[in-house]
Amino acid sequence: MHEMISISVVKRLPRYYRYLGGLLEKGVERVSSKELSELMDITASQIRQDFSNFGCFGQQGYGYNVGMLKDEIGKILGLTRVYKLVIIGAGNLGQALAANSRFAMRGFEITGLFDIDPWLIGKEVSGIKIMHAAGLGPFLVQDKTDIAVFTMPGENAQDVADCVLASGVRGIWNFTNVDLKSTGHIKVQSVHLTDSLMTLSYMLNDG
Amino acid sequence: MHEMISISVVKRLPRYYRYLGGLLEKGVERVSSKELSELMDITASQIRQDFSNFGCFGQQGYGYNVGMLKDEIGKILGLTRVYKLVIIGAGNLGQALAANSRFAMRGFEITGLFDIDPWLIGKEVSGIKIMHAAGLGPFLVQDKTDIAVFTMPGENAQDVADCVLASGVRGIWNFTNVDLKSTGHIKVQSVHLTDSLMTLSYMLNDG
Repeated sequence: MHEMISISVVKRLPRYYRYLGGLLEKGVERVSSKELSELMDITASQIRQDFSNFGCFGQQGYGYNVGMLKDEIGKILGLTRVYKLVIIGAGNLGQALAANSRFAMRGFEITGLFDIDPWLIGKEVSGIKIMHAAGLGPFLVQDKTDIAVFTMPGENAQDVADCVLASGVRGIWNFTNVDLKSTGHIKVQSVHLTDSLMTLSYMLNDG
Repeated sequence: MHEMISISVVKRLPRYYRYLGGLLEKGVERVSSKELSELMDITASQIRQDFSNFGCFGQQGYGYNVGMLKDEIGKILGLTRVYKLVIIGAGNLGQALAANSRFAMRGFEITGLFDIDPWLIGKEVSGIKIMHAAGLGPFLVQDKTDIAVFTMPGENAQDVADCVLASGVRGIWNFTNVDLKSTGHIKVQSVHLTDSLMTLSYMLNDG
């Protein structure tokens, strides 16, 4: 299903989802492409085209039903189920992600937190005890973890990836400075913080 | 200068910079577009075209000089100077960013850390004392801060943005779930973590 949605549309979906959620919270039940356009800084025709891709057409004089549209986008994004996440690397960033309650609200549940630092092991973060990475492989299998979160130092990323690959995990959310490639059964989504900061410094110097 | 570089090329520059840095660390002094292509999963012709945009042409049988190319890209990215960053919101994520030594290596120096939580104020993170947000405006002016890092809860983002706008800060690195717009003199670069996670869940369900 939805095989015809292009990657450029997919990239806009989380943002649509976020804005529609915000409207719902404010009690807004219908929205026109024009209103959404002003809110999101995307042209109204682009919005209509994006939504028509997955069979959502606004009605003249009514617009879109916010709740239905959000549900539809949620389905496409796979947000109709719960995903188990295990965080590998329980330093500052790993702990920050573990403590972020917004993920759980979207159905992303942290089920484990691993590290190799003896000072961290046994410590509790947001109700989860940090475990020793030696037990990572068996845990991932037994837990049926969906997504491994890579917050360990970059030099360990490839070793951990090899362990994760053998475990049935299907996704890697990668915060290391190493680019990991998606393979057949495992998908990688990276957040390169330093790249983002360098893009900002470019913008500061570009007029 | 470099006004002709398109945004799609700019987006690839931090990644080139990262890979060239990695090669230099390994003692690699020259590289062909073909080698870089295999490493980075970008076509060799795309790489040649990107580099020619800023006047770097590989030599037949030699390739590119890694150090010169990295320096050139660094100049375009504005990495030839030091930027002062102030982190606003000293919770887990703010502390994680403050503790990240990779930013300082690239010339991004954390000069202040602010919060409104009395339990956090006075605490030290990576050698920086957390200050009360009431003093934010005067600090930004006196410090000549370049970049404000938004790690406070989203509901406070607009108020803080108003304060920051009046202070001479030129860039916002935004981690809140609120989209802030670049205005004339202030540029915004956002990292939306939940959007990234939703993109991953889409990928897990897309075949």
